[in-house]
Amino acid sequence: MRPTVLAVALALLVAAPLHAAQPTRIPDAAIKRAATLRDAALKDDTAWKVTESLTTEVGPRPGGSEADARAVEWAKAKFKALGYDKVWTEPATFPKWVRRSESAQVLGAHAQPLRVGALGGSVGGTVEGEVVRFPDLAALEAAPDGSLAGKIAFVDYHMQARRDGSDYGNSGRARWAGPSLAIHKGAAGFLMRSAGTDLSRAPHTGGTRYDEGLTPIPAAALSTIDAEQLARLVALGPTRVKLALDCGWDGEYTSQNVIGEITGSKRPQEVVLIGGHLDSWDYGTGAIDDGAGIGITMAVGALLKPMKPARTIRVVAFANEEQGLWGGRAYADKHAGDVANHVIAVESDFGAGRIYGFDSSARDLQPAALAQIQQVLAPLGIEWMPGKGDPESDIGPLTERGMAWAWLGHDGTHYFDLHHNAEDTLDKIDPKDLAQNTAAYAVFTWLASQADGGFGSTPKAAGSGD
Amino acid sequence: MRPTVLAVALALLVAAPLHAAQPTRIPDAAIKRAATLRDAALKDDTAWKVTESLTTEVGPRPGGSEADARAVEWAKAKFKALGYDKVWTEPATFPKWVRRSESAQVLGAHAQPLRVGALGGSVGGTVEGEVVRFPDLAALEAAPDGSLAGKIAFVDYHMQARRDGSDYGNSGRARWAGPSLAIHKGAAGFLMRSAGTDLSRAPHTGGTRYDEGLTPIPAAALSTIDAEQLARLVALGPTRVKLALDCGWDGEYTSQNVIGEITGSKRPQEVVLIGGHLDSWDYGTGAIDDGAGIGITMAVGALLKPMKPARTIRVVAFANEEQGLWGGRAYADKHAGDVANHVIAVESDFGAGRIYGFDSSARDLQPAALAQIQQVLAPLGIEWMPGKGDPESDIGPLTERGMAWAWLGHDGTHYFDLHHNAEDTLDKIDPKDLAQNTAAYAVFTWLASQADGGFGSTPKAAGSGD
Repeated sequence: MRPTVLAVALALLVAAPLHAAQPTRIPDAAIKRAATLRDAALKDDTAWKVTESLTTEVGPRPGGSEADARAVEWAKAKFKALGYDKVWTEPATFPKWVRRSESAQVLGAHAQPLRVGALGGSVGGTVEGEVVRFPDLAALEAAPDGSLAGKIAFVDYHMQARRDGSDYGNSGRARWAGPSLAIHKGAAGFLMRSAGTDLSRAPHTGGTRYDEGLTPIPAAALSTIDAEQLARLVALGPTRVKLALDCGWDGEYTSQNVIGEITGSKRPQEVVLIGGHLDSWDYGTGAIDDGAGIGITMAVGALLKPMKPARTIRVVAFANEEQGLWGGRAYADKHAGDVANHVIAVESDFGAGRIYGFDSSARDLQPAALAQIQQVLAPLGIEWMPGKGDPESDIGPLTERGMAWAWLGHDGTHYFDLHHNAEDTLDKIDPKDLAQNTAAYAVFTWLASQADGGFGSTPKAAGSGD
Repeated sequence: MRPTVLAVALALLVAAPLHAAQPTRIPDAAIKRAATLRDAALKDDTAWKVTESLTTEVGPRPGGSEADARAVEWAKAKFKALGYDKVWTEPATFPKWVRRSESAQVLGAHAQPLRVGALGGSVGGTVEGEVVRFPDLAALEAAPDGSLAGKIAFVDYHMQARRDGSDYGNSGRARWAGPSLAIHKGAAGFLMRSAGTDLSRAPHTGGTRYDEGLTPIPAAALSTIDAEQLARLVALGPTRVKLALDCGWDGEYTSQNVIGEITGSKRPQEVVLIGGHLDSWDYGTGAIDDGAGIGITMAVGALLKPMKPARTIRVVAFANEEQGLWGGRAYADKHAGDVANHVIAVESDFGAGRIYGFDSSARDLQPAALAQIQQVLAPLGIEWMPGKGDPESDIGPLTERGMAWAWLGHDGTHYFDLHHNAEDTLDKIDPKDLAQNTAAYAVFTWLASQADGGFGSTPKAAGSGD
């Protein structure tokens, strides 16, 4: 299924918009060095060591926690140890959400505990009620208003595993929109089957929100196995559950985006931005989400430094992505006036599965330049997939203001087995896959730093669309 | 590797002891019906339905808990619903151990939570200390007495997966003997890598004990992943951990062995005993340990009833195996005078993996009878493995008093992934494997009920050896 260079070129000619960007061309010498870099990166274990260090020495590091501050110090020290030319921090302030305890029990004749995780942003509280099961969010939506008075809504959507993780659209929506919908129907509490593709006892947490004007209700995710147990019990007859969450908002906290730079040798004011997010949820040690992203991108800078890249390589370890993209938004606010100098950005925030595709906002890139990039990535098993990608998480806010982006797509088939649950730990990363990831990011970052001409970064008003 | 009937016969002739038992012979008609029974059992879902019912409706059911009492009522009702001729209970009294809460944290620069499970029988208490890691129990044994004063001993033995589960000898010993050994060395607390072959965040509990005269210390198992994390941290430098367990002994409880019988049509006073244990640990729903054993053996009685077995089929759902074989010991005490009438016993308490071998204390069985049994079991993929088996758990105490036993060996390659942890749930059982198990137990139980002559049950004093 990998398109030939000719097919790619033809597709681009057809798809090229009327307002083509300035010619982009990568010097032949840079292509040659990219191939050497790629092969060296496949044998390099810097990304692994960085990821191991973060997940072991800092461990879980939710935004606003004591470990958040330690992670910031860790990142500063790690950038310096890796030889970055400049290291600094930029503040990101956010409301702090705290999980203290959580439990659920089936009551009555089939009394037994259920494993639940409060959704990030949930209010605390203890509720008891009969469980009403809905196979998906649409079924809950179809319930008459007020019909769930005093009851606990249970959205039992079974997330499907896909390479591109696209079913997160359905399961993530259940998490984000489910609690408010349940409130509209009168429910006293909200339970959902975890937005996960595993079958385990580990609940998947993740952010939720309540529509304005609603009185929040406790909202939690059951582990997938506990969801199956509850579905069986509900099928046997009326089933009452007690849900007790002690969690909620607790003041404000200021964390830091931690930034390391390899200063450009020829165009230092022009920046190629790469990064991941430094925070994690609290259950696991944040290995695939997003220790790997930190490991990969920190390693890329270290690998590129001796190559003296023309443009500056800026690696950002973003603060508190999980609870609302706070670091990415703070970065965009601070650098809104500097979009034109952000030549292109690429984030790694989708685990450490092998990279299989790449895409970019620069779809009107010169076919010749695209073919050059493809030539170096192809041996890694990566194909050009125009229209398949998007800017991952933290770089989103600045791409909304016109920054060009690239996408290097990780195989996410197993990502949602581990996403936001206790099993997101170092052992889930395959060092060989991580090295392939690093090679892909290193090659792309290097080529972007050496390209003559840009990738289409053009300042525009925030929120004006793509 | 399956021996031919001739090879088996020859091996037995060589191995036959001087005092051979009375001739045992299975009527040809019984063999023929056994084959029909086997094939019907492979298509029967009674064992699955019983296991599903127990694990769903009762859920976790540790000895002495509120769910223990519900499990007893459930078993009585299930025996009756399955058409058993007689259903009754026999008491088993034991000290009750209760888990209330448990936690552990790494302290200091790498502060983070660790997932632990108190070992059954552990005292409660909170201790803080530097962790000293030992790769196995022998290394702890080699430490000088008093050398661990104020420290936490950490036995980091990595259990290996094997079909016969034999490495439980090493990891189980660490659990049973580790805490006392740690006390002898002066330790304030005991941690071990879970006796499990998985790589997950779910700690494996299980019973431990303290040698007489020692002052108990809190003792817990880390999940395998948390053990790896702690090992990495200890390798980085001195690591202090706080272990807080709220658990302990809490009075006495009387549970019940629940017994169902299919009355023998010709020799009702002679009993073929089968069974499993009704209790489970508290983390999972006790599907492989030992819901499956209850499901299989309850199904066997139901399958055999219309066949009007010559001997009585007695199915025992034993009380509180996990905390000290209390049901099995109570049964042995009560029936000590009736060993001769217990023609043979076979338990199912090693999960629901496919049965691959069989063995019996009756190794001096007539080669002809053995060949008959083998003939019916062979199509299930089961071979005669003299010397490989033993009486599983609850029937042990009465076999010590002379009751003959058989062994139907489950493939235990994955048993210790789930043993005593939260992942021991219904979804882990393959219905086809469970039906194969049921077919094997049904065939063996039927043949034992129809055999002319016994299997060597001979009363002897308790504890006089085999």
